[in-house]
Amino acid sequence: MRRNILIELAYDGTNFNGWQVQRAGRTVQGVLEAALERIHERRVVLHAAGRTDSGVHARQQCANFHSPHPSIPAEKFREALNTQLPLDVRVMRSREVPADFHARFAAVEREYRYYLMSTDIIPPQHRNYCVRLRAKPEVEQWNRMAAALCGTQDFTTFASPTSSVDHHVRTVYRAAFVPEGPFLVFRIAANGFLWKMVRSIVGTITESDPPDVDRFREILHARDRSRAGTTAPARGLFLHRIRYEL
Amino acid sequence: MRRNILIELAYDGTNFNGWQVQRAGRTVQGVLEAALERIHERRVVLHAAGRTDSGVHARQQCANFHSPHPSIPAEKFREALNTQLPLDVRVMRSREVPADFHARFAAVEREYRYYLMSTDIIPPQHRNYCVRLRAKPEVEQWNRMAAALCGTQDFTTFASPTSSVDHHVRTVYRAAFVPEGPFLVFRIAANGFLWKMVRSIVGTITESDPPDVDRFREILHARDRSRAGTTAPARGLFLHRIRYEL
Repeated sequence: MRRNILIELAYDGTNFNGWQVQRAGRTVQGVLEAALERIHERRVVLHAAGRTDSGVHARQQCANFHSPHPSIPAEKFREALNTQLPLDVRVMRSREVPADFHARFAAVEREYRYYLMSTDIIPPQHRNYCVRLRAKPEVEQWNRMAAALCGTQDFTTFASPTSSVDHHVRTVYRAAFVPEGPFLVFRIAANGFLWKMVRSIVGTITESDPPDVDRFREILHARDRSRAGTTAPARGLFLHRIRYEL
Repeated sequence: MRRNILIELAYDGTNFNGWQVQRAGRTVQGVLEAALERIHERRVVLHAAGRTDSGVHARQQCANFHSPHPSIPAEKFREALNTQLPLDVRVMRSREVPADFHARFAAVEREYRYYLMSTDIIPPQHRNYCVRLRAKPEVEQWNRMAAALCGTQDFTTFASPTSSVDHHVRTVYRAAFVPEGPFLVFRIAANGFLWKMVRSIVGTITESDPPDVDRFREILHARDRSRAGTTAPARGLFLHRIRYEL
């Protein structure tokens, strides 16, 4: 009887070509599945809550796997994996979940955070984990734009032009710019996100000049990718949390 | 007429073999002097407020050099250097100072900060910038030990055994453990520090078991290096600020 194990992960995306295993390049899924294979002495497939792009970080990514191991206690997979993993990815927690649990389909909420810094020069310590704001932050106006994102809407405007998913309707629960230490952080929670959606939203809002809420609403409702601004760099983005009803 | 230029630097010490140019290895002074040489087309020597060890970071290191360049405005050395420098070292500010100013001898106060995290597993983003506390932090007792460091005293106990300086008397102005976001930070300001003194103090205080202020005072007053605890790892240490009366 295989147990279904859920792991919570944190990683520094700087030196990863994103989550998903590819023909070439180091990926988070790749190093994790390699560690699982060393522990189990056979291939074990990992299912993530969501794929993160190259350079995107995670504070709490979730993934599950069906373990054929007869004896390792569920909570001990954390340590067993961490001793096998490179230091830029860590298992923060591991536990057993019901047999039919799937990290992607069971997720009821995902939260991303995007870190901005309003400064001439980003201190080197933060260079891979935030993006410099070129213009003066217009937090009040930006938060009115963020509020316009909330609710169930078609987010085609902020979808990647190469998006292949069926429909672009998602429900955004919360979205706001919040000061956090030296950063201005864009926090957004939704039932799900389109590919590059958060970075496209951040680019569009922070480069709007002048910031105009009505114009932002119009862009959002146009369902037209060509109306969006640039896609903000990956290094500012953290997958912050996945919520389950467990 | 050479101008004397003071630069304020921030660096990520992770991939540096410390400040000082050595026969082998990448050093902060080395990459800065190489950048200065490209700008001036001749060798220019840099004088730092203090040398930092391999793996130690800086939020505000200061250094001066006498520039033979005829025209670059003092404030523009920041940009001129940053375009030549690797991303793990940045010049945050540059300005002209009196001809006889020396970054080391003119410094009236130096502050270091040591970052500790009380957690099972350090999130990967912070892995090079803090150290995990193994024991429960005893902040109240630790702060009483920190207070015992203040004043003009002989710090031989916390000097490196290979220290070659004449005397070990320094004046500590402030020392305390302060919560800062997810970290517990040991902040210490003094007129100067002995080699590895901050890391030796942090190791001795945080590993004292049980934390005993009277015993700590006895260790400090013993002027005996063998009484100190272990030296805390370099990666938790930041040179935070250098003060001048300018």
